[in-house]
Amino acid sequence: MDENILGLIAGALTSIAALPQLLKVLKTKNTKDLSAMMLVILISGLSLWVWYGLINDELPIILSNAFAVLLNMILLFCKLTFKK
Amino acid sequence: MDENILGLIAGALTSIAALPQLLKVLKTKNTKDLSAMMLVILISGLSLWVWYGLINDELPIILSNAFAVLLNMILLFCKLTFKK
Repeated sequence: MDENILGLIAGALTSIAALPQLLKVLKTKNTKDLSAMMLVILISGLSLWVWYGLINDELPIILSNAFAVLLNMILLFCKLTFKK
Repeated sequence: MDENILGLIAGALTSIAALPQLLKVLKTKNTKDLSAMMLVILISGLSLWVWYGLINDELPIILSNAFAVLLNMILLFCKLTFKK
C-alpha cells in the first residue's frame, strides 16, 4: 500500500477514534470512568502534533490532529462539568 | 524547537496518554463509561501507524505506536472482561 495513503488512513482513524466516546458521553452524561489525566496528556500531545504539522507544512497532520484536539477538549469539558 | 524533538515529545505524549486511563480501570475495575468502539478504532489506527513506521523504517513511530497499541489492547481486554 502507498505509504501516503496508509498515513492518511492511520491519521483519520486515530483522529476520529474519540468520536464514539464523545457520543457515548453526550448520550449517557456519565464520565466517571474516564480519566481526566488521559485527556490532558492526549490533548497536549495532539497539540504538539499540530505544531509539528505547521512547522513541516503538512496539512494532513495539522487537520487530523486539530480535529482530535477539538474532540478531546469537548470530552474534557464534559468530564469536568458532568461530575458523574 | 527542533522538529524531530517536537515529534518525539508529541509521539511520547500521545502514546502514554492511555496509561492513566489503564491505571484507573485496573484500580476501579469500572469500564462502563468507556467506549469499546473508540478502543477498536484507535487500535486499528495505531496499528496502521506501526505499519507506516515499518515501511519508512522510522523507529520512533514504530515504538511509540506499538506501545500505544499494547496499552489500548489491555484497556479493550479490561472493557470486555470487567463487564461493569
